[in-house]
Amino acid sequence: MAILVTGGAGYIGSHTVAELLDRGEEVVVIDNLLTGHREALLGGKLYEGDLRDKELLGKLFAENEIDAVIHFAASSLVGESMKDPVKYYDNNVYGTQCLLEAMQKAGVNKIVFSSTAATYGEPEKVPIEETDRTEPANVYGETKLTMERMMAWFDKVLGIKYVALRYFNAAGAHASGKIGEDHRPESHLVPLVLQTALKQRESIAVFGDDYPTEDGTCVRDYIHVSDLADAHVRAVTYLRSGSSSNIFNLGNGLGFSVKQVIETAKKVTGLEIPVVIQERRAGDPAVLVASSDKARSILGWNPQHADLENIIQSAWNWHSANPQGYGE
Amino acid sequence: MAILVTGGAGYIGSHTVAELLDRGEEVVVIDNLLTGHREALLGGKLYEGDLRDKELLGKLFAENEIDAVIHFAASSLVGESMKDPVKYYDNNVYGTQCLLEAMQKAGVNKIVFSSTAATYGEPEKVPIEETDRTEPANVYGETKLTMERMMAWFDKVLGIKYVALRYFNAAGAHASGKIGEDHRPESHLVPLVLQTALKQRESIAVFGDDYPTEDGTCVRDYIHVSDLADAHVRAVTYLRSGSSSNIFNLGNGLGFSVKQVIETAKKVTGLEIPVVIQERRAGDPAVLVASSDKARSILGWNPQHADLENIIQSAWNWHSANPQGYGE
Repeated sequence: MAILVTGGAGYIGSHTVAELLDRGEEVVVIDNLLTGHREALLGGKLYEGDLRDKELLGKLFAENEIDAVIHFAASSLVGESMKDPVKYYDNNVYGTQCLLEAMQKAGVNKIVFSSTAATYGEPEKVPIEETDRTEPANVYGETKLTMERMMAWFDKVLGIKYVALRYFNAAGAHASGKIGEDHRPESHLVPLVLQTALKQRESIAVFGDDYPTEDGTCVRDYIHVSDLADAHVRAVTYLRSGSSSNIFNLGNGLGFSVKQVIETAKKVTGLEIPVVIQERRAGDPAVLVASSDKARSILGWNPQHADLENIIQSAWNWHSANPQGYGE
Repeated sequence: MAILVTGGAGYIGSHTVAELLDRGEEVVVIDNLLTGHREALLGGKLYEGDLRDKELLGKLFAENEIDAVIHFAASSLVGESMKDPVKYYDNNVYGTQCLLEAMQKAGVNKIVFSSTAATYGEPEKVPIEETDRTEPANVYGETKLTMERMMAWFDKVLGIKYVALRYFNAAGAHASGKIGEDHRPESHLVPLVLQTALKQRESIAVFGDDYPTEDGTCVRDYIHVSDLADAHVRAVTYLRSGSSSNIFNLGNGLGFSVKQVIETAKKVTGLEIPVVIQERRAGDPAVLVASSDKARSILGWNPQHADLENIIQSAWNWHSANPQGYGE
């Protein structure tokens, strides 16, 4: 039986495909390659196309014996979502509806789904737990919450079991050095910092250094992309064992400040990283850290690369060897 | 400027079109006529087709000067929604997304939308107020809540103002006697009771007569369809005056029991209506009544046909004159 990975040519998707291949799983990928990269696929059978292409999806399920789906394909830029909500509803909500419809038709009843900690919005408390209030502060988070709620109904009515994984910031790169992070445009802190070290950017902007945190900069939750990949694979195993649908946070439990990230990157690279302090951004909470106690106890998840230096070193291995990412 | 009514050939839609025409409004209707009836349209310009047909929607907005939309088009059978969730997400959520996209492109920024009291699920208390917990108990209610939440984001991001109207059971028929209620299949109490009086059905089933209510049968909120139509038109006026987005319950504030409905129908028709008492249905609360204080005070809504006899008399005028509804 094969596992279908939607968005498998994306950043977390490609690392999950690598993890699945390592474990001897048969992998089928669907990716429209709009933000994913063909070169990021270390194996598996690629269907180039979109989840909203019902014909292609039908063909894919007919041609392969799929028993579970890992669903990454989505638009995921918070800023863009607040300018073009149609794009986010269409790609994320309607795309997921098309996927669930195809699963229903093919009799596939297990899906692991990359949700987001943005479903919580401004946190009630930190670390955030799965039962905390969900009140997204942007359209991106809203569409992911809508996807979660939709899956709960498809479980109740049709028996399609799901695991939703909520996390903040993926970072780092695969141990092989073959794949890494390459978003266009890039909006994530670690690659931006490393591109600054590589002099591809003049400086790195820090939005506010007067937050009530130890060093005044925002504290965020970074997870190594390979630890995230491991969690997705564990979630498939969990569903294959007949467990019921569930929602898990994936967090490092601690959080690192923006300054800590920059200082660690200086140490790892041995290079200058000019910093420009700017105004706080609206809607940026001081601390966003998720509790992953539930994932640890139920999925047996135990991050192997939780150390910040380890995360940044692996990212640097990729960025320094591939300064243009996956190229043109 | 014209008002676009989606689902304008349906039960509440057609009564709202009649109300708009009475007030001299220019009306454009889009209806795929799958559950609506061409004969139910007393006027206006009909585009026969589906909200999910982006080309048709684009043409409609290009050919007419629309300044506001009243959005009824949706699938609305609770039981069906618990068997075919794809249909409900596609028709209700995706359909609304297509409509909002077309409005955005055409620069139309006002929409009044028929939501449902099913967004509340099992009520915390009665009468239900707009700020009460929303926890739908079926896919139909979930898709309507998703539509409400979607509209809130389209307001925040794009400035499209909306009014969501939440109500339970529309009943009755237009004073002209020209239009009335004809659902296929029929699932609403008042027409079922009147079809029993007309001997089109052997008996009317009452699900449970041991509820903690005055006569043991469930108490529900019935609103005359012309009062609902009036509320929709008032909501358009409210948005045209520049008011901000809002959510209103539309209820009669009192509620009538199933037995009361049947007894009143016997009185109005002068005919026998055999009753069969059956088991309670799962998920049927004893009393569902909405407070409409907010709609009364802000929209100035004041139901003119709140009396049960008045509601059933108007329905009887239609059913007795049109025993086959709109015919084939």
